[in-house]
Amino acid sequence: MGRPFDKTQGRPFGFTLCATDGRARLGEFETPHGLVHTPAFMPVGTQGAVKATLHRDLVEIGAEIILGNTYHLFLRPGDELIARRGGLHRFIGWERPMLTDSGGFQVFSLAQRRTITEEGAEFQSHLDGSRHQLTPERAVDIQARLGSDIAMVLDECLAFPATHEDAAESMQRSVRWAARCRARLELLRGTPSPDVMVSNPGQAQFGIVQGGVFSDLRQESADATVAIGFEGYAIGGLSVGEPIDQMYQVVEETTARLPGALPRYLMGAGTPEDLVECVARGIDMFDCVLPTRNARNGQLFTSVGRLNIKNAKYAEDEGPVDPACRCYTCTHHSRAYLRHLYQAGEMTAGALNTLHNLTFYLDTMKRIREAIQLGTFERFRQEFLRSVRLKPDTTNGVSSLSLDS
Amino acid sequence: MGRPFDKTQGRPFGFTLCATDGRARLGEFETPHGLVHTPAFMPVGTQGAVKATLHRDLVEIGAEIILGNTYHLFLRPGDELIARRGGLHRFIGWERPMLTDSGGFQVFSLAQRRTITEEGAEFQSHLDGSRHQLTPERAVDIQARLGSDIAMVLDECLAFPATHEDAAESMQRSVRWAARCRARLELLRGTPSPDVMVSNPGQAQFGIVQGGVFSDLRQESADATVAIGFEGYAIGGLSVGEPIDQMYQVVEETTARLPGALPRYLMGAGTPEDLVECVARGIDMFDCVLPTRNARNGQLFTSVGRLNIKNAKYAEDEGPVDPACRCYTCTHHSRAYLRHLYQAGEMTAGALNTLHNLTFYLDTMKRIREAIQLGTFERFRQEFLRSVRLKPDTTNGVSSLSLDS
Repeated sequence: MGRPFDKTQGRPFGFTLCATDGRARLGEFETPHGLVHTPAFMPVGTQGAVKATLHRDLVEIGAEIILGNTYHLFLRPGDELIARRGGLHRFIGWERPMLTDSGGFQVFSLAQRRTITEEGAEFQSHLDGSRHQLTPERAVDIQARLGSDIAMVLDECLAFPATHEDAAESMQRSVRWAARCRARLELLRGTPSPDVMVSNPGQAQFGIVQGGVFSDLRQESADATVAIGFEGYAIGGLSVGEPIDQMYQVVEETTARLPGALPRYLMGAGTPEDLVECVARGIDMFDCVLPTRNARNGQLFTSVGRLNIKNAKYAEDEGPVDPACRCYTCTHHSRAYLRHLYQAGEMTAGALNTLHNLTFYLDTMKRIREAIQLGTFERFRQEFLRSVRLKPDTTNGVSSLSLDS
Repeated sequence: MGRPFDKTQGRPFGFTLCATDGRARLGEFETPHGLVHTPAFMPVGTQGAVKATLHRDLVEIGAEIILGNTYHLFLRPGDELIARRGGLHRFIGWERPMLTDSGGFQVFSLAQRRTITEEGAEFQSHLDGSRHQLTPERAVDIQARLGSDIAMVLDECLAFPATHEDAAESMQRSVRWAARCRARLELLRGTPSPDVMVSNPGQAQFGIVQGGVFSDLRQESADATVAIGFEGYAIGGLSVGEPIDQMYQVVEETTARLPGALPRYLMGAGTPEDLVECVARGIDMFDCVLPTRNARNGQLFTSVGRLNIKNAKYAEDEGPVDPACRCYTCTHHSRAYLRHLYQAGEMTAGALNTLHNLTFYLDTMKRIREAIQLGTFERFRQEFLRSVRLKPDTTNGVSSLSLDS
């Protein structure tokens, strides 16, 4: 039930734990751009737009917070341009809360010829090959210019699988980087810098727990990161190809080491099942490209499993994607029409499919919150998992890899 | 002020001429799916969707009627499938009026290895090379299955430039095809055919005046087409590369030969200036891919001329695309953001730009209608033309070529 304050400036990042049900938590946090109810899912707006959507559609379907990718925005249109335009919210015309990642994950997965040293990462842009450096301090500065409501520390993203030794070394470097990130933010908060136009003085900063799939490393990372002190904590380095049970186990063990009064964010996950299973293990926030990217590829999430709209069996199917869904797509269009649009390569297919998939994700979070409130989360969880596994057109047992939306 | 009835079945296609101002006409027509106010612009929904839009966006910005392309819908998903699904309106979930072209223009411009005989056109699909035949009768049957509110006769589309002899021969064939189209429609109206599921018994049929840029041929075509008798008349074969003044002259001369009590449709045109100039010459209906296609290419129409959003000078421009516009794009987003989305290749760029361009076109039609109602059309025309030519980022003197949206 804590309401922690940033010790250096007295800035509130108001997380309130409203109810618990088992390890599932119902909460809300305040940001300079409004309230977010948790557990929350954040649609991914990599380049300042959630692909194939208009902002008003996101508001309509209940998106309270979206994510922007620092790597992409840093390269184009540039964090300094965005700062001159008043910050990311004003630049893109989104008035609700936003979280930005540190850019590290994309540097590790998208950039060309990257070299990592203790100082930071050197890399070449995937757009034009231009050379750049991303240090912990720079990641803080860029996000300060973007002015998101929640900034993330720069962490080293380890490939899966990794040895215990490599995972330990990488995790320990991430902890040192986290400390540098926190120091830099506190400096910016205390002393206006002529080099860094701070777009959102109320920006919070989350630390990130790393350590691969090794319990001891995760514990060490959690303890060291919490010792630095952040407004919230994320679990990084999961959903990168490890078996799903291992992911759940790491989540379960890690949340147990994190402060109960602060929000916990599982980065880059996941499937609808992952959302429910990780809420059951104490997670409050999620982001993932699955609903948006899969929508554009014709895969739709429904209350009775996944559906590939390109499947010939839908060619004359007059039913909605999901009879249980109240989104614009499901209340106005048939599977037959959506299949036709997909086959015809119409952009409208991506828009309608995205609207549906995001609605399914956001509605799932709403149902999760209601179940926790009512104390019926465990029953909801069992029913939900049985239902979404009913007729999966395609599934695999491997968790998702997220690069962009 | 006529309210003509189809003589074979007594079906009303209620066109009412409400007011005139010079040669500009204010009217409305009734269809089985509702009323359309004229002069009207029809957004092009080639494959059953106006590219990069949702239907609700079209309704919001005042689209009363959209166009579907028979060639595309015949090839995919197929007119028989659409008929089984209850017709095009029901299949795509659009409840307002629709017009379909005959497919001829696309056969001439898109299909591979086409051969034209008196019987009709043989062609290969641009999608898969499959062989098909499009006769006047088949064009009627396909559109009967689609069930649009207004069907077009099959006409031969002449390339520009053409000799008088070629234009005459082609025009005369189009007249013979028009008569066959009318006979086929009357047969379908009178005798239910087991081969043709008629999706919309109230479908009207428009004839098309051809004849290139030759006044005598246009007159001959108009007279012969009117003699056959249709619910409305279109002017085809313009906006294919001829000088703009020649297009205006053909329009002016042709509308003078058409019945005053029936609607007149200029196919495939045009620029905002074309709309105003051709309303001034007695046109009631337009369709064109310019607003939608150019939107996706970053060209935006405004009250003070065209604007190329990719231009570097907009990188930090906080103003809206058009301060005079009340569309979602202009009231929520800056030129800087739209330029960023375009440069980043975001689908949202196409959606926002399309929403704006179509709003500009539909608002222009609304202003035209208001001016005719008030008897101030000529003043509106002068002011509009001066205004939209103010600072054209790019223009050319050649009319637009329309293939798809």
